[in-house]
Amino acid sequence: MAVIIRCVAIKAHVFSGRVWSPLSIQRVNSISVQRLFAADRLCVRRRALNSKYFSSSTSHLATVSTMRKKLLADVDCGTDDAQAIMMALADPNVELLGVTCVHGNTTVENVCKNTLRVLQACNKLEIPVFKGADKPILGNAIDAGHFHGLDGLGDAPCPNPPSQDLVQEESAVSAMIRIVNENPGEVSLVATAPLTNLALAVRMDPSLPSKLRGLYIMGGNTDSRGNTTVCAEFNFAADPEAAYIVLKDYCCPTYLACWEFTCHSKLSWEFCDAWLAQDTDKARFMARIFRHSIEASRSERCEKEFVAGTGFVSCDSYAMAAAMDDSFILEYDEYPVSVELTGTHTRGMMVMDTVGFLKGKEAPKKAFIMKKVDMKKFEQMMMAALK
Amino acid sequence: MAVIIRCVAIKAHVFSGRVWSPLSIQRVNSISVQRLFAADRLCVRRRALNSKYFSSSTSHLATVSTMRKKLLADVDCGTDDAQAIMMALADPNVELLGVTCVHGNTTVENVCKNTLRVLQACNKLEIPVFKGADKPILGNAIDAGHFHGLDGLGDAPCPNPPSQDLVQEESAVSAMIRIVNENPGEVSLVATAPLTNLALAVRMDPSLPSKLRGLYIMGGNTDSRGNTTVCAEFNFAADPEAAYIVLKDYCCPTYLACWEFTCHSKLSWEFCDAWLAQDTDKARFMARIFRHSIEASRSERCEKEFVAGTGFVSCDSYAMAAAMDDSFILEYDEYPVSVELTGTHTRGMMVMDTVGFLKGKEAPKKAFIMKKVDMKKFEQMMMAALK
Amino acid sequence: MAVIIRCVAIKAHVFSGRVWSPLSIQRVNSISVQRLFAADRLCVRRRALNSKYFSSSTSHLATVSTMRKKLLADVDCGTDDAQAIMMALADPNVELLGVTCVHGNTTVENVCKNTLRVLQACNKLEIPVFKGADKPILGNAIDAGHFHGLDGLGDAPCPNPPSQDLVQEESAVSAMIRIVNENPGEVSLVATAPLTNLALAVRMDPSLPSKLRGLYIMGGNTDSRGNTTVCAEFNFAADPEAAYIVLKDYCCPTYLACWEFTCHSKLSWEFCDAWLAQDTDKARFMARIFRHSIEASRSERCEKEFVAGTGFVSCDSYAMAAAMDDSFILEYDEYPVSVELTGTHTRGMMVMDTVGFLKGKEAPKKAFIMKKVDMKKFEQMMMAALK
Amino acid sequence: MAVIIRCVAIKAHVFSGRVWSPLSIQRVNSISVQRLFAADRLCVRRRALNSKYFSSSTSHLATVSTMRKKLLADVDCGTDDAQAIMMALADPNVELLGVTCVHGNTTVENVCKNTLRVLQACNKLEIPVFKGADKPILGNAIDAGHFHGLDGLGDAPCPNPPSQDLVQEESAVSAMIRIVNENPGEVSLVATAPLTNLALAVRMDPSLPSKLRGLYIMGGNTDSRGNTTVCAEFNFAADPEAAYIVLKDYCCPTYLACWEFTCHSKLSWEFCDAWLAQDTDKARFMARIFRHSIEASRSERCEKEFVAGTGFVSCDSYAMAAAMDDSFILEYDEYPVSVELTGTHTRGMMVMDTVGFLKGKEAPKKAFIMKKVDMKKFEQMMMAALK
Repeated sequence: MAVIIRCVAIKAHVFSGRVWSPLSIQRVNSISVQRLFAADRLCVRRRALNSKYFSSSTSHLATVSTMRKKLLADVDCGTDDAQAIMMALADPNVELLGVTCVHGNTTVENVCKNTLRVLQACNKLEIPVFKGADKPILGNAIDAGHFHGLDGLGDAPCPNPPSQDLVQEESAVSAMIRIVNENPGEVSLVATAPLTNLALAVRMDPSLPSKLRGLYIMGGNTDSRGNTTVCAEFNFAADPEAAYIVLKDYCCPTYLACWEFTCHSKLSWEFCDAWLAQDTDKARFMARIFRHSIEASRSERCEKEFVAGTGFVSCDSYAMAAAMDDSFILEYDEYPVSVELTGTHTRGMMVMDTVGFLKGKEAPKKAFIMKKVDMKKFEQMMMAALK
Repeated sequence: MAVIIRCVAIKAHVFSGRVWSPLSIQRVNSISVQRLFAADRLCVRRRALNSKYFSSSTSHLATVSTMRKKLLADVDCGTDDAQAIMMALADPNVELLGVTCVHGNTTVENVCKNTLRVLQACNKLEIPVFKGADKPILGNAIDAGHFHGLDGLGDAPCPNPPSQDLVQEESAVSAMIRIVNENPGEVSLVATAPLTNLALAVRMDPSLPSKLRGLYIMGGNTDSRGNTTVCAEFNFAADPEAAYIVLKDYCCPTYLACWEFTCHSKLSWEFCDAWLAQDTDKARFMARIFRHSIEASRSERCEKEFVAGTGFVSCDSYAMAAAMDDSFILEYDEYPVSVELTGTHTRGMMVMDTVGFLKGKEAPKKAFIMKKVDMKKFEQMMMAALK
Repeated sequence: MAVIIRCVAIKAHVFSGRVWSPLSIQRVNSISVQRLFAADRLCVRRRALNSKYFSSSTSHLATVSTMRKKLLADVDCGTDDAQAIMMALADPNVELLGVTCVHGNTTVENVCKNTLRVLQACNKLEIPVFKGADKPILGNAIDAGHFHGLDGLGDAPCPNPPSQDLVQEESAVSAMIRIVNENPGEVSLVATAPLTNLALAVRMDPSLPSKLRGLYIMGGNTDSRGNTTVCAEFNFAADPEAAYIVLKDYCCPTYLACWEFTCHSKLSWEFCDAWLAQDTDKARFMARIFRHSIEASRSERCEKEFVAGTGFVSCDSYAMAAAMDDSFILEYDEYPVSVELTGTHTRGMMVMDTVGFLKGKEAPKKAFIMKKVDMKKFEQMMMAALK
Repeated sequence: MAVIIRCVAIKAHVFSGRVWSPLSIQRVNSISVQRLFAADRLCVRRRALNSKYFSSSTSHLATVSTMRKKLLADVDCGTDDAQAIMMALADPNVELLGVTCVHGNTTVENVCKNTLRVLQACNKLEIPVFKGADKPILGNAIDAGHFHGLDGLGDAPCPNPPSQDLVQEESAVSAMIRIVNENPGEVSLVATAPLTNLALAVRMDPSLPSKLRGLYIMGGNTDSRGNTTVCAEFNFAADPEAAYIVLKDYCCPTYLACWEFTCHSKLSWEFCDAWLAQDTDKARFMARIFRHSIEASRSERCEKEFVAGTGFVSCDSYAMAAAMDDSFILEYDEYPVSVELTGTHTRGMMVMDTVGFLKGKEAPKKAFIMKKVDMKKFEQMMMAALK
């Protein structure tokens, strides 16, 4: 079932940005790869079109800007969301069009504050931040625990907080719909939180998913290992109905960084030390907000949750890295996926139909489930995030 | 448990409108009545304020217009929605601010068409019509059956249909939020369809319910008599999650015309004959669109569904009548209500906690459940609707 | 839907017993009545056979003994079970073959003790008592509350308790199977407790139900009025799986005295006073064990539970009376019934398919649901129980 | 979490039987090992007692017979049950006290027939066979598919079938209770079928589990890989309530050979060829009944179901091997386990609380979940089964 992709991306550096050459993909399982890159074909054509202008020096700047990957991040800004955002901000090839906030690791108010603090730490307060849903679809919030501290960002003191007036008037759901419609076929949505905003957006504008380049989700689980309830992962457990709606109605290519995958793709504590020891303001910011999670990660309870092995898991960053770099995913499964809504122990658990039991109307949409990623590249991206 | 209210409304006719005097309520169960009219107290104060100007002839027109009841209708325009809308349009004391449409008896596209046809039949095409959700929260539409015909309006030919361009650009949910915010504390929302639009609206604007004067719903059931599944009524069964959200998060006074109540409050077939025999265009329009439902009502299956006795049930009109006239409800129960989401046979069934089993966080919000209404008045309102 | 039966039972008193003449039934709804008495036809034939011997004086005793109604009671001996048992013991026309005990109002150990005390009070310790299941099918006992006191029999002191050695070695389930097989087609099973024993018995011997004359159950509800959870009655809520199994697999004629029916068939407090004031040991025994329930009945909570009106409800006695006297039920509904197993608020609720939504394999078995009984006769039977 | 045990069993061969020396266990995780062998300590003491008689030549035979492992098998005799039974029959150190039959791979009638055929093929028709439950606790049988053929034994012709009169009069549940009570603390129950009989037995005799030496189950799954529904394994899916009851109420040491484990412990097709090529009647019998499953195993659908890798899976034989030989399990997990009863996609799925989310009353009982077994030994046992 697994497909191994090896992408050789020939990169032409132009000014401060990187320009992508058409992807050279070595096909292993051609059918699956075709599907995986269905949405990419449009892009490749667009890029081919752009390449006409490469010789023309005057068009360089414009070209570069259109070539940058357009991302929209939907976050519940805990420390791993912060890491994912900082990773995106550090890549000159990525254009972060905005950050939409939602309840999750902490209240949506705190999520807005935390997001602004992260943008401030990166000198990117010009990126618009939008406030979204303050509770899940059904309205019953679960306790996020205190892995990310009470405020979601490690309860680190913030001497000079950015003004809350920087949060946009426009709601997250409206902004999401507007931004995607302004950039049809170009936006990759990176969702690293409960999926409430995305679920509301598709009910408000059913055509939204068809206009996305792709959807990258951190959430769900593949082997019934829960980190929030016995069988469910936090982002899905925090709003099972939203996860159900998104997996069902987002018809764009959908990539999942599930809980067990992230646990099996840990970064070492040695890497963590070197990462935080960089002599930069960003690294010092991260060290401050991450201290709490590091300590929590080493508790007995967390070691059980984190499935296997030691090290630290920056869950949300895998989804972001996959959205940023098409060659990041080395191996994936493609299965119909849905979410269990009614189980006593399994409510919120992702359901993966590996055999093909669900037929006809019942058959869920397929998603690409990450199995193996380029960990070398991941370390480089993480390292760059704090440079 | 039941509370009998006798309202003596002294009405002062001013021009073509009616002006309400402060309600003179004979209290039987004073606590419950206080609660019922908690939201009304504001209104009464507002009216008292207005009454200062009664002597001033120049302010009459303005007064009258502020005194008219502002209604917003959320419909899935089948024949009984049509009857409810026509009832509202016929009352000079009522201002229908708009009609929001939603899937239900038929597709949302048909609901928009049908609503425009009803407005056309009443010469009220100036009332704005908004298109809302095309499917329930979870996205799995149920079959509405053909009680109202395939098109929801009895499959009666429509030689001169109004242009679909009359449907507003603005979405139903946005319009609902905007209109209520423009008229804080004044709008009564009458919901006679699956509650998808209302559920989305409260997630988009959590403060919406607190700005409503009241919410009048046709839907749910009190004695587990289903008309769509064994235990569930259509409007709730068609979107159980939406019904759950609305009963939970609409903190305004909420009045329910449940299925069994409407069945026990049938109008006689003799009334029906006289009603449709009126020599007006509206009556002829109603006779055309209602023929199909009349025939369906007399089938064996429907007689079982309609619980007890013979006659016809204009379900949605009870909710509308209650919103139009505060003295319409003669007897009600006030219980915590919620919706079962997970049962094999009971998904979508309204749950009514008559004893008080649910405590603390689990305790649902209370609603006013109609038990007895002024049937004389109802016949008058229905009759007036086709005048 | 309802069928009114008027039974004129011509009774020929022979010695101390009563001999039934073939029932003279005035048919109102002939099809339903035929079904109701499908099981009775066999009996009638049997009786006709017996009547051959009526002239023969030597066969009188034998005849009388074969004519007595054979009952087997399955109880969780609280005060109303006690009343039902005493009612049966007082009728010379009834032969109580045994009493099987099960968890419910109190532990199965207490149920055995209580049953022996009731038999002792009636000088009938020769009737065998069997110990059955100590917990429901899934094993998760619910709290029975203290309506019948901690010991299930009003916590009244028992100066001279019968020896526990009187409880039979044979288990309740084995005894049930054996007794029914020894009396094929003759035993009416009266179940006034959680249905665990009955469910186990049909799994141990699938042919058991076909050998019963009839099954009389106190349990379930028809209008989603719960007395234990929001929507569920105690006997069904205490073992929903057992109730599901019994309603599904007991193919014999099944009569239900549901919660709402018993509440609407209350006896007055005046009757209660006269009933307990009889100058007999039995009446004094009942007064002692019933005091606690009388007080509990008058609490605010109980008045809500008891649905409507005042008076006292001897729930289990309606099922017993129906088993004792074929003319007791005056009006009934015949609907497919099942039990909801998975709802959040509705687990354990009886589901009644009044319209006929469930087809084919899904369609549950029909049961006779009591709507109206002969209250005059009921008062006489109750009164006789303490004579 | 995993515990590695290395058992060095010094075996003293006495006549045709093997006598165990006290186990020499190298403890890796001492607490868990202590728990695992809690039940064994009794045995070890018993063995120590027996060893007194080793020098006495006259007592040898008696000793040997008491030292043989007493097994009781509960089967739904498909081809892998047949393999497990034949494995037990081939071991002179094992005494198979009886075989109880239950619905599952085929009807319980076929299961009885198939079991007798297996015993006949091994010349062991003196072992008693008991007929048990013909359907699951709730009564709704699922379709077993045709992996084992229509008759459960590959639809191989049977020219000389054993008489069905050989099936005992006593029911499976009664026999199970009787046999265990006759051998308290000595019987290992090997359950390779839906757990209906075991669930009924513990409700009929709550003390049964405490009298077992151990319980060895083939069933359930650990990673939500289903072979019958999306998330559930056949034996658990075929009677989820029974599996729930058994995991909850069988307080004896419980060992699980779950679906994914058996799939990851496949035997090679080369082994299969050699195994069936043995020149014995048993091998020829197996080749006949196994042909159908071999072909089915190679279908595309089955390859997906069988999780990973090629080869054949004799699921039930792992549970039997573990019951036969204490040193068979090399690595196991010990977690609280239960069964999901209410999920849309997850009903029947085993739930494993690896982190410890369930506390207090909710916390399920722990079981030993096989992770790694001695495959060399397994091949020897399988090979011996057909000798």
